Order: sequence, then C-alpha cells, then structure tokens
Amino acid sequence: MKDSVFLKITRFEDAFTQIQRFAHPIDEGERIRVSEVFNRVLSRDVESPIDVPHFPRSSRDGYALVAADTFRAAEDKPVTLHLAGEVHVGSKPNIGLRRGECAKVSTGAMIPEGADSVAMIEHTEEDHETVKLYRPASPGENVIKIGTDLRAGQLVLKHGRKLTVFDSGVLSSLGLSEVEVYRKPKVAIISTGNELLGAGVRLEAGKVYDVNSVTIHQAVTASGGIPLDLGICRDDFARMADIVRSALVSSDVVLVSGGTSKGPGDLMPKVIQQLGKLDLYIHGVAMKPGKPTILSSIKGKLLIALPGYPTSSLIVYYALVDPLIRKMAREQPFELQRLKVYTATKVYSEIGRREFKPCRISKRDKGRILVKSMPTGSEAITTLANADGFMVIPENVEFLEENEEVELYLFPQRSEEIDCTKGGTQ
Amino acid sequence: MKDSVFLKITRFEDAFTQIQRFAHPIDEGERIRVSEVFNRVLSRDVESPIDVPHFPRSSRDGYALVAADTFRAAEDKPVTLHLAGEVHVGSKPNIGLRRGECAKVSTGAMIPEGADSVAMIEHTEEDHETVKLYRPASPGENVIKIGTDLRAGQLVLKHGRKLTVFDSGVLSSLGLSEVEVYRKPKVAIISTGNELLGAGVRLEAGKVYDVNSVTIHQAVTASGGIPLDLGICRDDFARMADIVRSALVSSDVVLVSGGTSKGPGDLMPKVIQQLGKLDLYIHGVAMKPGKPTILSSIKGKLLIALPGYPTSSLIVYYALVDPLIRKMAREQPFELQRLKVYTATKVYSEIGRREFKPCRISKRDKGRILVKSMPTGSEAITTLANADGFMVIPENVEFLEENEEVELYLFPQRSEEIDCTKGGTQ
Repeated sequence: MKDSVFLKITRFEDAFTQIQRFAHPIDEGERIRVSEVFNRVLSRDVESPIDVPHFPRSSRDGYALVAADTFRAAEDKPVTLHLAGEVHVGSKPNIGLRRGECAKVSTGAMIPEGADSVAMIEHTEEDHETVKLYRPASPGENVIKIGTDLRAGQLVLKHGRKLTVFDSGVLSSLGLSEVEVYRKPKVAIISTGNELLGAGVRLEAGKVYDVNSVTIHQAVTASGGIPLDLGICRDDFARMADIVRSALVSSDVVLVSGGTSKGPGDLMPKVIQQLGKLDLYIHGVAMKPGKPTILSSIKGKLLIALPGYPTSSLIVYYALVDPLIRKMAREQPFELQRLKVYTATKVYSEIGRREFKPCRISKRDKGRILVKSMPTGSEAITTLANADGFMVIPENVEFLEENEEVELYLFPQRSEEIDCTKGGTQ
Repeated sequence: MKDSVFLKITRFEDAFTQIQRFAHPIDEGERIRVSEVFNRVLSRDVESPIDVPHFPRSSRDGYALVAADTFRAAEDKPVTLHLAGEVHVGSKPNIGLRRGECAKVSTGAMIPEGADSVAMIEHTEEDHETVKLYRPASPGENVIKIGTDLRAGQLVLKHGRKLTVFDSGVLSSLGLSEVEVYRKPKVAIISTGNELLGAGVRLEAGKVYDVNSVTIHQAVTASGGIPLDLGICRDDFARMADIVRSALVSSDVVLVSGGTSKGPGDLMPKVIQQLGKLDLYIHGVAMKPGKPTILSSIKGKLLIALPGYPTSSLIVYYALVDPLIRKMAREQPFELQRLKVYTATKVYSEIGRREFKPCRISKRDKGRILVKSMPTGSEAITTLANADGFMVIPENVEFLEENEEVELYLFPQRSEEIDCTKGGTQ
C-alpha cells in the first residue's frame, strides 16, 4: 500500500463522528424468558396483571381471628376462642370464621373469610379445641393486605430500564414467563483473503489461519451485539459482492476484514462502491494502525471494512466499532482504566495520524511505572495478548522522549492484576 | 418461627468462613470452541503446534530477490534483474529464484526459494520482464522469517490464564479450533413450598408465583456458575429427599429455598439430616434477613438452604453463596462500590445479628446523600428492585441515629446512574 493513493484521508475524530451519526439504538423488541432478562433493556412498560399479594396473608405463625373478640384479653384474664380449623400455606381456607372463633395459620397462609387479625402464637395457649388469648389483637395486625406490594394495573417497571436480577424477581412474582426487551444488534462478520484457512484444517505453504473471524466474534459479543459468522470469503469480486449484499439484509452492521488497501488486489473498495448510493464513504482514516479502514453506509446500514492484520483489525474495532455497537445495544460506553506512566525508551510516532500503541509495563522505577511500546505489524499476533494496555499518541506528536509522562489505557484483565494504587495514579 | 428454637445460631463471619472451607476451584477441564473462550480460564498450557509465521512472508509490496545481487545498486546506477514471475498472497510460489532474478510479491505473500530480501516497490521500476533496482537491498529486509512470532513447541499461554479476546486471536493463529478450560460449577436450584406456582399458570387463592427459581438462576449465571433448574418441589419429605439426593449427584452445589425454619411444617432440616454424615451443618446464621439459612456439606458437596422469602433469599445468596460460586469458578470477587452517606431517619437494628438493610437514596442535603431503609419481609417483592444499595449494620449496633454517617454498598446498575463524584465520596 503506497501512502500516495490515500488522497482523502479522514481525521480520526471526524471518522468517529461520522460513524456515530449512523449509530441509532435498535428500536425493535423481542420476547425473552424472564429467567434470561439480566442486563437486557425493557422495550415496553410492564404493568402488574395482579394484586401482590393477591390474597390476605399472615405474616406470622399464629391464630387468625376477629380482633374485636380479643379487646378485653389480658395476661390475668385471657379470652377463650373456639379453634375452628387450620389453614395451611398454599391452600384455600375451607372455613369462614364467625365471632368467637379462630383458625390456626402459618406464615404466608391465607387469612380465612371473617378474620381481620392474627395473634402471634407466642401470646396464646392452645388446648384441644380452644385457644386462650392473653393480649388483645388489633385489626390488621400481622395481616398483609391484598395489593400491599403491587396493585393490579400499577406501572411496575418502565420501558428503557436495564433489568437486574432483582427486577426479574418482581416480574416473576407477577407470574410473567416472558417479557419484551430491545433486541441486540446483529453484526455480520466476514473475513476475506485467499491466504486464509479455517481452524482445524491442515496448514499449507503460503496460507495462514483466519484470526479475525474469531476475535471479532467475541469482541462483538462483549460489546452487546450478536455475531453472525459468515466465514471466509476468497478474493473474488462476485463472491464478495454476493456475501456483502446478503449480509446487509440479514444484519444491522456488516464488518469485513482484509482487502481494504488501495492496491490492485484489494477488492473491498470496489465491492462497496458498486452497492449503490452510499450515504457515507470514508476510505482511509488518519490512525495507526488502521489507515486502510473503510467506513460506509448504504440505506442507513453501516458496512465497515477493517484491515486484515489481526492486531490492526482489533484496534480499529475497539476505537471505532465498539462504541457504535454499544450505542445500538443501549450498553454503557466501555471505559478503560487510565494510569499515569512513563516511557521506558523514546517512542516514535507518525505525524498526522493518531497512534494507538500497544505497550507493556517494563518495570517500576522509584515509584514510577515504565512502559515499552510493542509492534503491531503482521508479525505481531502475540502483541495484544502480551500487552498491558496502550498509549494514544496525538496526531501532532512526532515522538515521546524517554521518561516522558503519558497515560496508559489499561486492558481490563490487567487492571485486576496490577495494583494501580502503587505509584501509578499518585 | 420462634427465636428460642435457634439454640446454636452461628455468627455471620463464622458461617462465611465455614463455607469458604469447602469452596475449592473446580479442577476438571472441558473442551470448548476457541470462539467462546472469552473470560474462561485455561486448564492446560498451550504450546504452539506450528511456527508462526510458518513460511517466510513479505512485509511489503515489492520484489523478492537475492540481496547480494543488489549491493552495487545506486540512484544513478540501477541494477537490472530478470522478473521471473509473481507470488500471490495465499499461494505457494511455483518458481525458485536464481542469481540475477526477482519475483513480484504482495504484502503477506510467501518469499520464493532462493530469495532472501524484498525491495519495496517504491524503490524499483518494472519494465516488461526486467526490474530496475535503485538502492541496494540488505539480506532479510522486509522478510518476516519463519517463527518470528511463535516457534513450534513454544509455550504460548499458561494454564490458569483468564482468556481475553486477544488470546483467542493467538489461539486461532495456531489453527486451534478448541481448547481446554476449567468447567464452570454446576449449581442445582430447587424451590420448595406447596404455595408455589410456576410462571404462566393461572393463579389460585392461597398460592404465589415462584420467584427464587428465576432470581437465583440469573444470580448464579452472573457469579460464573451454570444453573441447573430443578423446579418447584412440594412440601413432601420423600419427594424433597429424592430431588435433593439426585441434585447432589448432578451438580457441584445445591441451592434449595424455602422450608428452612424450625417449625413443624419446615421439612428441609429433616431432609438434610437424613442424607448421611454431614461434614458441616449450620442451621441459623446471625444475619438479618437470613436467620433460618442452613449451610451443610455431605461428602464435600455443599447444600445450602436459603430462606423462602425472595428478598431474604437473594440477600443470603449475595452475602454467602456468590463468593463461594466465584471461588469455584475462578472469578474475581464481586466488589460493590461504596459510598459515604447519611441516614435520613433513625434506623433500628437487632443486636446480635449482622443486618443487611436495603436502602434508597432519598435526597441530597448540603452535599450529603441521605438514605432511607426499606422493608425486607414477605410484603417486599419490590424492595430490592427499588433499592439503590444496602447498608451493613454490625452485630453490636442497636440503631443508627438520624444523620449518622454510614457506608452504602451501591448496586451496580445504580453506580452507572448516580454521579458518585458529587457529594458522596469527598
């Protein structure tokens, strides 16, 4: 790829803004089981179809009774009631109480017709078919009335709410088995290149195993999208056009990798150009790695072509695509922890491009954390796996001096391992 | 439930420690697809089965050649080589180079036999079957040698590593389609009670919909476990004993809810007692809510009986069970954000029990955040859904004064919504 062919390279900030213009939260809903709602976003208000509780319940083990019968009860002068029966938890009472009667109830049992109060078992004495009360009971005591927690028709959870485990409890207390949430964005993933082989097949000279299908799949899931794996496509114009066209139909966003440069063998720009009228077309972003990235939109649907190199492809994904998918999925933006560090060596950068430099913590020196930058080319499959994070070097910076202060964006798994309170942020 | 029957109530800290004694990370592995490894923990070292790259690759578009042929090349005195052919990306070269020859190569293409260097296209001029070189090429220039990134047999990722998206890229570059990770703990979930109905069925008098099956299912997933839903069991000794016994076989941990008090209708203590020799048996934990909790272990397998009330059940889950499942699943402990707040009203607590009080931020007052406590009884299905977090009131505290400083453990979804930098933590 010669630099000269990128005539209209777009600034990183502008590329980011352009994509965001097409990033709309998905508005369609889908019904899912209440046992799977955790972290999903409700797309409709939920009103309670029932009163909760929907029958008067006892909050104690004791005796359901008519409070007025007990007003004169005292420690030295108990009131005696006739024990008319018992109500078990989960059963409908087969008795109604008349004045002078009581029924044994357990916590959670239904209060029988006629009763308005429950005396705690501790304040009573049962003897054959009678119960002695040593204290007056007041009306409503130890009775949870119908609808105390929720009323039928009451708004319970509002649309737009990100559902918690607790919310799923509320939904199931209403007897709901399904609920409508916003569906997740479907993201088609296509790797292109004659050199690519799928996992598990025998390696041939000149070929390499496809990495991007696997990494982008998992990155999309983590961003809140549903990956649609469309596999590997050979560098063949007609095939690429076919698969891209059908991907635009079946998904909300299409991610292609490989074939994005402006060389004669790089077909993706031509494939995209012939899709029809493009609402957006940016070929070349002033970032490093990631210059050959293509951002395009046809009929409002985004098609993004990432560079073929796995590290470049992932860096462009996190810098430009992850914020897009999260917005469509109504997920919070992903924010990396930042750490104040110092360069272990002089670091060169390219003027005019925003550089995302993977780097590794090399040592601590007098309370300072020193970092070394790492390669991002084709020889660098292991770079991101070994990196602790990355630095962002602005467009107007040509180099960082040795021992220059800089911010490290720490990868999440490293945040767990590195004690950031020591030396880093002070 | 009378307090007096809990003769040997166990301190919360001791209960926690006892469970942890039985919490061992799962040691068995399982093979999963490399496209699903994100956040899983490798159970075996992975060594590279191949060199990466496994053929010498060009890192540039240009001409593969014998460097020694070009040592005398200069701007004003180019060296002319015979163009013997072209190597496409993904193809095995069908030519070998002799002295005086070169072959056109694209970035990523295999270097043909005999060549040891690639001249960048920018420093050459092609004319029919000859190529003029205007600069000397040095041996190895623009050639990525076999095994530059990884050597066959080299240790690539160590067992115990929590895999990232980047790691999945390394694994797929090796052509691996599967990898062995520690399996997740299987957690059986059983709700008990004659009053319970499953979702979607018609409500009857005296019955309530089962909540714990749904909430605990999702809580277990979030802790890193695999929930095994065993449904609702009636209060029937033989049935309960059967289901618990088979759950102990099919899972790593059994979670039961309901029937845990010491009343005559509460069967769970009896069911557990007849399972055989128990390595651990705690009935009654000095916490609120959650006193009737049962912690037991038979042949090293934990069986935990949670209270039936949904809020109590979830609070005990998060306080005692979540740390257990996370340890078994090799997940990081779940740490809630803490916020310095003040009580909006006087808050009563029970001496001798550690109280977990759900509460809600009621207002801000002169930069202070005020919180109100919320009910946790059977009438409180909505409490946790509406709470912003909870306070922990120690065993020796009988009440908190109005306007007393206290720590709020903020629920995660609230951390996103509440700007904690304002007034809270300063």
